[in-house]
Amino acid sequence: MSLRAITSLANPTVKAVRALHMRRARAESGLFLVEGLRSVTEAVEQGRRPAMLLHGPAVADHPLVRKASAASGETLEVSEAILAKISRRANPQMVLGVFEQALTQLEALDPLSATCWVALENIRDPGNLGTIMRTADAAGCGGVILVGECCDPYSVEAVRATMGSIFATPLVETSVTDFLAWRARWPGAVIGTHLEAQADFRRAPYQAPNLLLMGNEQAGLSAELAAACDLTVKIPMRGRADSLNLAVATAVMIYAVTAP
Amino acid sequence: MSLRAITSLANPTVKAVRALHMRRARAESGLFLVEGLRSVTEAVEQGRRPAMLLHGPAVADHPLVRKASAASGETLEVSEAILAKISRRANPQMVLGVFEQALTQLEALDPLSATCWVALENIRDPGNLGTIMRTADAAGCGGVILVGECCDPYSVEAVRATMGSIFATPLVETSVTDFLAWRARWPGAVIGTHLEAQADFRRAPYQAPNLLLMGNEQAGLSAELAAACDLTVKIPMRGRADSLNLAVATAVMIYAVTAP
Repeated sequence: MSLRAITSLANPTVKAVRALHMRRARAESGLFLVEGLRSVTEAVEQGRRPAMLLHGPAVADHPLVRKASAASGETLEVSEAILAKISRRANPQMVLGVFEQALTQLEALDPLSATCWVALENIRDPGNLGTIMRTADAAGCGGVILVGECCDPYSVEAVRATMGSIFATPLVETSVTDFLAWRARWPGAVIGTHLEAQADFRRAPYQAPNLLLMGNEQAGLSAELAAACDLTVKIPMRGRADSLNLAVATAVMIYAVTAP
Repeated sequence: MSLRAITSLANPTVKAVRALHMRRARAESGLFLVEGLRSVTEAVEQGRRPAMLLHGPAVADHPLVRKASAASGETLEVSEAILAKISRRANPQMVLGVFEQALTQLEALDPLSATCWVALENIRDPGNLGTIMRTADAAGCGGVILVGECCDPYSVEAVRATMGSIFATPLVETSVTDFLAWRARWPGAVIGTHLEAQADFRRAPYQAPNLLLMGNEQAGLSAELAAACDLTVKIPMRGRADSLNLAVATAVMIYAVTAP
């Protein structure tokens, strides 16, 4: 092991980075943790500067690590044991980056810049949220809007599931009230998914820009948000299962709207 | 708390149930763990008898618990602390059932009994596998075939993600060799998803019964299995993300095939 590598959990930077597993520490610092050289490099290529960069001894001379380090406010070489502690994983990534959160305001979105947008009401599962961010990015959606009481998109679990798309897709957090006021000016179709809807999701009159509204994992869309839709559609259930995983249902809807 | 409730981790049944988090214990016992009254009840309604049933004191008199208990080989009332230890969760389900694994043989499948089937090569993530089982059930697929070195469909994580569909969808484990021999007699289209395919997934000549082949999370389909496809298709990537989560990609394909 390199003599330079920090091996102590008492190191203040290591402590600050570990604290980013807690929502409160993320909220207070405005920072979040990104794991893996690939995601960190993509962020740097998009002009995002890591506030801190931590890497293992084995990758100290990797050109991409040097490049990320040059862009970073602070760089620390830490032992693999420390990386494992920070990641809470037996086989951690060798590179961790700490970045500033970058939420977008509702008013800054241009609805006409994409054919599909996704709004999530009270989403609870960070893995679902991260996976939806990744799908929205892959399908070229304009952004993801978190309405009401949602889980934190900057949690380690959510960011991990985005596979780097946390930097690519505009992300908004808003209240139901502000969302409804903004939705009133939406220039295309607002589409809700509802188990009791009549219209089949494959044959609905979508009209770009389409704004997809997806409800909470257990409760689905609230009556208030369902009422705010131009149309509600259902994904047919043909077996014993009476619902889909939320990230799956959102992806099926996104591709129905964007790849007809 | 009820005086009957077992509070000791040394209880032999509690120890045996906890051990089901380990693949080896599942393989040796042929058992697996199902969490939640809803999933356990669904299993009992489908004629599956729990080998063991564990429940918290609060639900001892619930009619569905009594019904499941009547069908069970053994029933134990345990403290909520014990349920939390078994589930490795702070807020555990109040009912846990232990069931016998029930894999199907390739030869027992009737390809003509469904319009879509799913084969997964070397799938690694139990959450993805469970979510795919759930989607396959919801969409009325005939079954899920695990090819090569896959994660265990009976792990607690996988079963949890199926949301009860572990009992609804036929499940096969097979080798590449046996799969290829069986595939040679497939009466419909065999479709692979490949990032370098030319055909768009929305406009491919599907022909029921469709057999979808999906590759490993990192590596995709192996050359050997890609060569065994009648056609390969791609899901368009329009943003920065260059791939979808495997459970998401599988769901998008299943619905493209079953809900054209």
